[in-house]
Amino acid sequence: MRHTISILVENEFGVLARVAGMFSGRGYNIESLSVGETMDPTVSRITLVTRGDEQVLEQIEKQLNKLISVIKVVDFTPQPHVERELVMIKVAVDEKTRGEVASIVDIFRGKIVDVASTSYVIETTGTEDKIDALIELLRPIGILEIVRTGRVAMFRGSQVFTVDGKEKERAA
Amino acid sequence: MRHTISILVENEFGVLARVAGMFSGRGYNIESLSVGETMDPTVSRITLVTRGDEQVLEQIEKQLNKLISVIKVVDFTPQPHVERELVMIKVAVDEKTRGEVASIVDIFRGKIVDVASTSYVIETTGTEDKIDALIELLRPIGILEIVRTGRVAMFRGSQVFTVDGKEKERAA
Repeated sequence: MRHTISILVENEFGVLARVAGMFSGRGYNIESLSVGETMDPTVSRITLVTRGDEQVLEQIEKQLNKLISVIKVVDFTPQPHVERELVMIKVAVDEKTRGEVASIVDIFRGKIVDVASTSYVIETTGTEDKIDALIELLRPIGILEIVRTGRVAMFRGSQVFTVDGKEKERAA
Repeated sequence: MRHTISILVENEFGVLARVAGMFSGRGYNIESLSVGETMDPTVSRITLVTRGDEQVLEQIEKQLNKLISVIKVVDFTPQPHVERELVMIKVAVDEKTRGEVASIVDIFRGKIVDVASTSYVIETTGTEDKIDALIELLRPIGILEIVRTGRVAMFRGSQVFTVDGKEKERAA
């Protein structure tokens, strides 16, 4: 089963290498990963998707918590949460297919973010299923290139996943 | 200067650990990173943001190209390209601020993806500047939590960054 895990880490040298190295060293796969800033410049947030049964996930959480610079770990999967990823797709277009591509983009509430005479760059966000469905529709028209961010996730409702229960303000 | 680099890698065990380890081992910082699938299940695409002068960037490209499983490296920065990231922001709301938050979300063409009695989860995409501006507007209202994907990038126009100049179709 797929699990979406978030990790708050101290924004220090080598922390991403340690996290990625723990996964590869122990034979756990990483399907996607993204790391970005939080409101606190000393803290980064890693979100990754991995696969395994309950026992494997327990091991992963345990090993992550042992790593230097890891502050907190959560597995979103068993709890109500929102998951999103961003994709940009470059599609080959001509006079015949421009209209069709524009309607597909509308249906998926995407945006055309670059227009050239023979190609469009489309951007959209959503769950993995939604993005896969968009790719399936565009495939016969001609996909030239795809780039996907890793998945990010957040609890539904007011529950938060932060260092101390509230985003620390960035120093002014 | 900030640089946005994409790397096509063979989807093999430990490749992310090797890439991240090269950066930390040589003292190059990674500001954000995301890794996701391409159309070819054997190839993943890493996009990362790093900082350095021309000489440092030349070294980074050279070292990346030496790594096992690295297929191709590009620095998007000197060429016309589209950059995007995705952010989800959980904002504290009450009867007084709900309307204000909804208008801000509209102006930024964001979406409210989760509604609870005391909080909203907002999703938007854009350049880093746009996302920073949204955060500044929401900050006085009360930000509870933020998660950002790393930045992804694509050339403008029909130029592509792929293994062989075209996305390989995923096996049916």
